[in-house]
Amino acid sequence: MIETPYLLFLGDAPDMLAAKVAIGIRDWRPENAIGQIRLPGCGADLGLTEMTLAEAQAAGAKTLVIGVANRGGVISAAWKEVLIQALEMGYDLASGLHNLLRDEGDLVAAAQTYGGTLHDVRVPTDGYPIANGVKRSGKRCLAVGTDCSVGKMYTAMAMEAEMVKRGMKATFRATGQTGILITGHGVPLDAVIADFMAGSVEYLTPDNDDDHWDMIEGQGSLFHVSYSGVTMALIHGGQPDALILCHEPTREHMRGLPGYKLPSLEQLRDTALPLAQVSNPACMVVGVSVNTQHLSEDEARTYLAEVEARMGLPASDPYRFGSDKLVDALAAI
Amino acid sequence: MIETPYLLFLGDAPDMLAAKVAIGIRDWRPENAIGQIRLPGCGADLGLTEMTLAEAQAAGAKTLVIGVANRGGVISAAWKEVLIQALEMGYDLASGLHNLLRDEGDLVAAAQTYGGTLHDVRVPTDGYPIANGVKRSGKRCLAVGTDCSVGKMYTAMAMEAEMVKRGMKATFRATGQTGILITGHGVPLDAVIADFMAGSVEYLTPDNDDDHWDMIEGQGSLFHVSYSGVTMALIHGGQPDALILCHEPTREHMRGLPGYKLPSLEQLRDTALPLAQVSNPACMVVGVSVNTQHLSEDEARTYLAEVEARMGLPASDPYRFGSDKLVDALAAI
Repeated sequence: MIETPYLLFLGDAPDMLAAKVAIGIRDWRPENAIGQIRLPGCGADLGLTEMTLAEAQAAGAKTLVIGVANRGGVISAAWKEVLIQALEMGYDLASGLHNLLRDEGDLVAAAQTYGGTLHDVRVPTDGYPIANGVKRSGKRCLAVGTDCSVGKMYTAMAMEAEMVKRGMKATFRATGQTGILITGHGVPLDAVIADFMAGSVEYLTPDNDDDHWDMIEGQGSLFHVSYSGVTMALIHGGQPDALILCHEPTREHMRGLPGYKLPSLEQLRDTALPLAQVSNPACMVVGVSVNTQHLSEDEARTYLAEVEARMGLPASDPYRFGSDKLVDALAAI
Repeated sequence: MIETPYLLFLGDAPDMLAAKVAIGIRDWRPENAIGQIRLPGCGADLGLTEMTLAEAQAAGAKTLVIGVANRGGVISAAWKEVLIQALEMGYDLASGLHNLLRDEGDLVAAAQTYGGTLHDVRVPTDGYPIANGVKRSGKRCLAVGTDCSVGKMYTAMAMEAEMVKRGMKATFRATGQTGILITGHGVPLDAVIADFMAGSVEYLTPDNDDDHWDMIEGQGSLFHVSYSGVTMALIHGGQPDALILCHEPTREHMRGLPGYKLPSLEQLRDTALPLAQVSNPACMVVGVSVNTQHLSEDEARTYLAEVEARMGLPASDPYRFGSDKLVDALAAI
């Protein structure tokens, strides 16, 4: 659990692309983002109030979150100065960088001296159980994709936001570092040891109110040979009541795997649903989320209408056209 | 890579059940088992030559393998005496125990002083890549089960032995600690970090001669919600050309999961084959291996004949009736 609210550290990020994590926090948990702090030459700007460490602390900030990728995988001296000063002032630090805060001696020393916590969200912090498959109360929805990086996290986030807006009980459950930094907690599933993967998902989505939905962040794809085991563990550990199929229709091959074609939405449905029904016989496929960023608006609308007719399921691009249809389908279960 | 041949340490094992690992080595790699060494009160006997550490060393033994489970999960003082003496004499040690040799200060000290290696085969030793899905030369066979512990390792071992007897090129590829101790190498797949599971299987089964078969040890089951992610990674990382379906027909529920029924062999075939064809479109289901230990011989023969008629596939219990039929089916590919 990372203490909120955050001050977002943008460092010397060359552009907005490098600030993906900070953008996610601003967009999905604006109440967690008190302000931004930047170094000279920073090319990213979230449009949040520019604050010093002292100003943000006075406004209540508890954790300095590194919201950007670092150049060349090195935590530079310029960054260090701010990070150590933050620890001296009583901040915690949180990061999803590949190189870990805990591997930097000066940060560890400052954290120990001043009592701060270093959160490296790529590293599992809890001991997870072996999955026991026992049926849990409450409802769960999992986004599964024809490929990696087709919008599964975005879909779950957008649906959670719409559900909360409607007064439904919903909680986004993060399974990757970006989601964990955005929400302050979760399981970094791709870093969990094989035997405990499904158990970590059970742990993440415990018993809940009968009308509560866990919106579980998907990972990988059953059709992506590098990461399909992680997807499988999510499907069985998550015990989903509802699956949302996610797709990017212009992709020519599986991400990072030239020669591997994407499956059709029908193949995804026919593969994922029987597997999900092993852990939850009542599971249904309720909708399709399409990432239409590479289509014109006309093309996107035509494509979605065609998918709806073909699959007999509501289809939307939550980023472009909202997630109402998908939430309607969940609410009807 | 564990140096062979071995001296098998049986300690004070109460009975043969506790000596599963040692029995596996004796049965499948007798050339690796120079002799056995026992403590007073040992109730297990492999029928191998009883040897002192010095006698076995004179006969060429390189590694003292702990071939038994330890009582109460503690490496006792009586064990330690033999283990430390072995290190002093220049042996390496190998163990699949839950508590690790490397966590015992006196063993670590002796290993450092005398230059021995402590092999804890439950712990991955190599850095594994992310799977790249690139087609490899040579052939691969994977045993997949309706459940855990239905005889997948035994099936692969028995088929490898029969293939070698026939002069075929075949290598058993271990993915669990027992298999690793038996053969001296492998990947402890259930202890690998999620992102690297499929990559570790690619690493374990590299390019080979076109007529060479890797006989890959299966793990878990696609229908076992605790471990299905591991099975999925084996199917995609292994790129199998051939699947053997494994089943235990008298089991009432999935191992450790009351309330979870076993799938039929048809369900296993229809689930595993399309998933395997993602990484290897030429993959086929070639046979069925049935663990008939809880059936009479008549019942077993009747059951196997019924499976053959129903599935249109050769079926055998390799332990009871040999693996000829299954190897014939592989050889025909």
